[in-house]
Amino acid sequence: MGECGGAQPLRGEFMSRTVAILGATGAVGADLLRLLEDGALPIGRIVALASERSRGASVRFRGEDIPVGVAAPGCFDGVDLAFFSAGAARSRQFADEAVRAGATVIDNSSAFRMDPDVPLVVPEINPEALERHRGMIANPNCTTIITLLPVAAIHREVPIVALRAATYQAASGAGARGMAELSSQIRAIAEGNEPVVSEFSHQLAMNVLPHVGGFLPGGETEEEAKLRNESRRILSLPDLPVSATCVRVPVLRSHAVAVWLTTRSPVAPERARAILERAPGVKVVDDPAALAYPMPVSASGTAPVQVGRLRADESSDSGLAFFVAGDQLMKGAALNAVQIAETLIEKGIQSWQP
Amino acid sequence: MGECGGAQPLRGEFMSRTVAILGATGAVGADLLRLLEDGALPIGRIVALASERSRGASVRFRGEDIPVGVAAPGCFDGVDLAFFSAGAARSRQFADEAVRAGATVIDNSSAFRMDPDVPLVVPEINPEALERHRGMIANPNCTTIITLLPVAAIHREVPIVALRAATYQAASGAGARGMAELSSQIRAIAEGNEPVVSEFSHQLAMNVLPHVGGFLPGGETEEEAKLRNESRRILSLPDLPVSATCVRVPVLRSHAVAVWLTTRSPVAPERARAILERAPGVKVVDDPAALAYPMPVSASGTAPVQVGRLRADESSDSGLAFFVAGDQLMKGAALNAVQIAETLIEKGIQSWQP
Repeated sequence: MGECGGAQPLRGEFMSRTVAILGATGAVGADLLRLLEDGALPIGRIVALASERSRGASVRFRGEDIPVGVAAPGCFDGVDLAFFSAGAARSRQFADEAVRAGATVIDNSSAFRMDPDVPLVVPEINPEALERHRGMIANPNCTTIITLLPVAAIHREVPIVALRAATYQAASGAGARGMAELSSQIRAIAEGNEPVVSEFSHQLAMNVLPHVGGFLPGGETEEEAKLRNESRRILSLPDLPVSATCVRVPVLRSHAVAVWLTTRSPVAPERARAILERAPGVKVVDDPAALAYPMPVSASGTAPVQVGRLRADESSDSGLAFFVAGDQLMKGAALNAVQIAETLIEKGIQSWQP
Repeated sequence: MGECGGAQPLRGEFMSRTVAILGATGAVGADLLRLLEDGALPIGRIVALASERSRGASVRFRGEDIPVGVAAPGCFDGVDLAFFSAGAARSRQFADEAVRAGATVIDNSSAFRMDPDVPLVVPEINPEALERHRGMIANPNCTTIITLLPVAAIHREVPIVALRAATYQAASGAGARGMAELSSQIRAIAEGNEPVVSEFSHQLAMNVLPHVGGFLPGGETEEEAKLRNESRRILSLPDLPVSATCVRVPVLRSHAVAVWLTTRSPVAPERARAILERAPGVKVVDDPAALAYPMPVSASGTAPVQVGRLRADESSDSGLAFFVAGDQLMKGAALNAVQIAETLIEKGIQSWQP
C-alpha cells in the first residue's frame, strides 16, 4: 500500500469502480464515505486523500480502516471517479491531473463553478447539463442547492422574476473545524469562560455574523454573490435579479433560508404547495398547528430539503414567501455530489466499465 | 409599607414623581430599573409590582432593596407614571384603573398598540403622536422598533414603497424565562445531555425556529403581522406593503434583522449611509475590511441600533439591503419606554408636577 492510501481492494466487494475522496478527513468527506457505504455506486476501491495535516490518519469504510494518503501527483492513476472536497486551492492543484489520469471529478469547491466548460449541477434541477461534461463537474454552493430546490420546482411551473434570500447558515459551512469551534465556544460559555475565536471572525456561539465568505467591492460577500451567480447558471436565467444576505448562526450542520420569490404572474400559496409536494428532493413541512415547520435540528442528517411557512409575499402583487432548511453537509454537499455520480450512471453518460 | 411594595420615599432623592413598574421582576423590568437609576427622570418613589409568582421578591434600585408588591386594585393610587411590562393580559387588566388613578401608562405589551386612541411611539420617529395621548402610550414591538429606526431615517428623505425583513430574534423576546431556557439548553448540550424544552416550541440551542408568536390564518405569525401593522402606524403609511419572516435564534438578548427596502426613486448606498450617519438612535457599523458589522454580541447592553452591510438591493431597480442589530431589552423595550417618558417631559406634554 503506497503513499496514496487505501489502495487495497475492499473485502467482499465487487471490484468495479475506484473512487477517490480528496478531503476524506473533513466534514463533507465523512458524509461522502457514509453515503458511499449505503449508496447505489458499486465501489471496488476507495482512495482516501487529504493534506499533509492528516498524515497517518485513517477513515472507516464498510468496517475497514482505510489509510489516508497525502494528496500528491500520481494518486489519481486508476481512479474512475474523484470527489474533491478540500477547498478551491487544492481543487485547482489536482483537477487537471485527475482528469488527465482518466477520472471524472465532482468538485465540491467554488474553483470551477463559473467555468462555462464545467457543468454546475443539482440533479433534480438541471441533470441535462451533465451530458456536456469534459471530466469536471461542479457541485454548487450549499446555500445555493438548498435554496434552489424549492425555487426551481416553482419556476418550472410559474416563471420567477426575482429572488431574495436571508440565510441562517450553520458552522459546518466552515468544515469540521468550524463545527468544533462552535462546540468548544458553547462549552466555554456553559462553563462561564470566554469563548476562543479562531475559525470565524467573531464569537459565533450566542451570536450571529452577517459575514460568510470574503467581502467584495460594493459590500456583498462572496457567499451572497455565489447565490446569485450560481442560481443564474443552474436555472439558465442569466439575468435573474437575486439579492441575498448571508448570515452565520450558531447551528451545527443545517442551513436555513428565508426566501422571497417574485413570480411573473401571481401564484396562490395553495398551488405552490401542490407543486412543492411533488417536487423531488423537497419535503413540505408546513403544519403550524402541529408546530411543524423547517428547522435545522430536524433537517440534520436527512436527505430532503424541508420547505414550510409558505404564504403570499405581502410586499408584492405577485410573490411567495417561505422558509427552507436542509442539511449543509448532505444535500448541501456530499449527497448532491453522490447524486451527480449516480445520475451519470443512470443516464448512461458514464459507466466507468473497464 | 403595603401590599403594593416599595412605597417608601427613596433615601436622598428629590421626591417628585412616583413611578410604578408592573413586571418589575422580568427581563424588561430589570432593564427599566437600571435605566431609571441612570436616567433623566426625577423619581421620588418606585412602586415595584409583579404577579403572585414573585410574592416576597425584592428588586434593587439605587442601593435600596425595593419590596415587590403583587399587582392589585389600588396599587396605582398616587402613581404619576407606570411602565407596564407584564404581558398583554395584565396590561388589559390594569390599564383603565391606572389611568383613572391619574397615572400615565407606557405599555410594553401588544394590548393597545393598534388602538387608535393610544399613540404608538418611537421617540426618534414619531414623537408628535405623544401630544394626543389620553393616559395610555404604547411601546412598539421590539422587532418593529429596531427595524424602523434606520428605515424611518431613510424614509424621511427618500420615500419607501415596500419593506421586507428576515429576523434573527433573541431568547430575551420570551422574557427572563426564555433567556434562562436557552442558557440551560446550552449547558445541557455542553454536558452531552438532552436539552429541556418548555418556553419555546422546540429546542432553541443549536437551532433556529421560524416561529415567533402564534400563527394566524394565511400562515403568518403574530410577530410578522405586528411588524407590518405597527410599521404602518408609526410611519403613517397605512398601506405600506410589508413582508416579514420572523425567526428565533439562539442568542441571548439582541435582535438582528436583514432588511430590504424598496424606495420610490433610486437611492445610492452612499447617500443612504450619509442619512444613517446623522440619524438619531442609529449607529453605522459598516467597515467590512475591519470585520465591523452589526452583531447581537456587540449591540447587547448598548443604546443605539447598529446598521451595516449597507448596499444596493440587486433584486430591485430601486432599493437597499442592510443588516441591523439592536438590544431587544434596551431600545427594543425598556429604553424606548423610558425615552417616551423623557420626551413627554421635554416637550412639556406632561410634567407630573403636584
